[in-house]
Amino acid sequence: MESDLRHKILAGDERAAARLMRGIEDDLPEAINELRDLYGNTGKAYIVGITGSPGVGKSTLLDALIKNFRKRKLTVGVVAVDPTSPFTGGALLGDRIRMAEHALDKGVFIRSLASRGWAGGLARATLSIIHILDAMGKDIILVEAVGSGQGEVDIARLSDTTLVVLSPGAGDDIQMMKAGILETADIFIINKADKDGAEILKIQMEQILNLASKPGDIWKSPIILTTAINGTGIEDLAKLIFKHQQYLISSKKIQERRDERAKLELIEAVEHSLRTRVNEILKDKTFQELTKALASKQIDPYSAAEIVMKETLKRKK
Amino acid sequence: MESDLRHKILAGDERAAARLMRGIEDDLPEAINELRDLYGNTGKAYIVGITGSPGVGKSTLLDALIKNFRKRKLTVGVVAVDPTSPFTGGALLGDRIRMAEHALDKGVFIRSLASRGWAGGLARATLSIIHILDAMGKDIILVEAVGSGQGEVDIARLSDTTLVVLSPGAGDDIQMMKAGILETADIFIINKADKDGAEILKIQMEQILNLASKPGDIWKSPIILTTAINGTGIEDLAKLIFKHQQYLISSKKIQERRDERAKLELIEAVEHSLRTRVNEILKDKTFQELTKALASKQIDPYSAAEIVMKETLKRKK
Repeated sequence: MESDLRHKILAGDERAAARLMRGIEDDLPEAINELRDLYGNTGKAYIVGITGSPGVGKSTLLDALIKNFRKRKLTVGVVAVDPTSPFTGGALLGDRIRMAEHALDKGVFIRSLASRGWAGGLARATLSIIHILDAMGKDIILVEAVGSGQGEVDIARLSDTTLVVLSPGAGDDIQMMKAGILETADIFIINKADKDGAEILKIQMEQILNLASKPGDIWKSPIILTTAINGTGIEDLAKLIFKHQQYLISSKKIQERRDERAKLELIEAVEHSLRTRVNEILKDKTFQELTKALASKQIDPYSAAEIVMKETLKRKK
Repeated sequence: MESDLRHKILAGDERAAARLMRGIEDDLPEAINELRDLYGNTGKAYIVGITGSPGVGKSTLLDALIKNFRKRKLTVGVVAVDPTSPFTGGALLGDRIRMAEHALDKGVFIRSLASRGWAGGLARATLSIIHILDAMGKDIILVEAVGSGQGEVDIARLSDTTLVVLSPGAGDDIQMMKAGILETADIFIINKADKDGAEILKIQMEQILNLASKPGDIWKSPIILTTAINGTGIEDLAKLIFKHQQYLISSKKIQERRDERAKLELIEAVEHSLRTRVNEILKDKTFQELTKALASKQIDPYSAAEIVMKETLKRKK
């Protein structure tokens, strides 16, 4: 890394930021060191998570929100966590399409993160990108991820405000409820509200939310109808996001959320450190032999793991 | 655990098996010890993974396949990995519905596994349940999971034969391709083939598969049309599964897959051991203070992680 990378990023330099982000994705130790130095310059951005099943219009909604925030003279960073394949190169394509419209706007920086290959470390990678965008001086950071069981829970843990997007006829409403998003959404969005079934979906959602609400809840997660493709409802949505931000600040809950995020980040960093250590051990000959013994049922996985652990603990850095 | 648990499980006792499975889910050390003892009695079952988006009819297909295997006098174990919420209790309901039909059949044992709360350890939990079903003497073990990015990849790594289920009009065909399932599917199923669009979807799939195929591929993943609800195509599907099994055996690729699985299992067991150790540390007062320091940006997550790591390594078991 170049020595003035930090200053360039703090000045909002996009090329420098992209460079550090690549370094983080490639897990380069010097990139992690740069990020450590930047950490003290973070904590100013407001983080909004957007999740929902494929096809509900998350990307269109994201675009509409970016435009709205830009009109308010707020700068925007985006992290899109996409399920992608090296074969289709989905993340890159998505980047290109989304970038096109905002490419010339210095107030917007968009980064896609492939969800594969990050086994267990996706939250850490996403948090790292968020920190870099934060250090660049972005006012609002939008984090987009496909909702899929464990996925959403993570988004909610990373975000100040979590938006959950549904759409009529997507047939996933009940599926989404199963996935446990009720507990994590701050604002529900029914997008494609010009389609049949939007009002019915809203009524169903209200019933489910009434059943799920607890007496102590002060913030009752509202349900808003939008048609992102033509901008309908986006101004109201933006206002709701700022209303939720005000609620978090006045109730001091924002600190609770940020403590939770710090806790998550510490756990992720510890697991990263452990994984790095384990990966070193696993490259060894001992490990190759262990795998063969395991495949032929000569040893059980837990006994094999104990052997690896003993090795790991022996080798202090 | 009762001392004769192992013998009961080896004799196919369902109550004993369910008891050990609960112990594994609750992460009880004595359950893990029982599993270690059982490990030498595993490796006989054939493992078939079934994945696909919500709504393509995976459960109906699973039911139809169970019936087909039972007609062949094969015993069947099922692990269903469901995205579920403590609020809706989805897994339990799913269990009840599926169990109803096969409840009186001693040749079938079904177990649901909630996908939440297993952060990073879902593969380990699934493998553990597979081993118990295997030790019970089940001939075929079906592993069902919702396809969602990283999800499928895991299923393929756990299975001998991986089935990917699509359906016309589910609108998820392109999404599925993005999620990188091409590389992992051994057999593609277009279910609900009586619906409009099944043949078109098949042609699209064939085109995509032709583009993706590599010169060295001997097994060209076939695409089969089924209507699971009335049994159409199920006998042909079962035959294809056995054909793939024969291919894996004759090409010796079955050993490669099982070595891969052993490797995955060792990594999972090592991570479990590390996580147990880290969790102990994280309960400490030091950790609470670290989190606060982190939230107020007095320390960066990597420096904080180093402190935790030093503690972890100091305390040998």
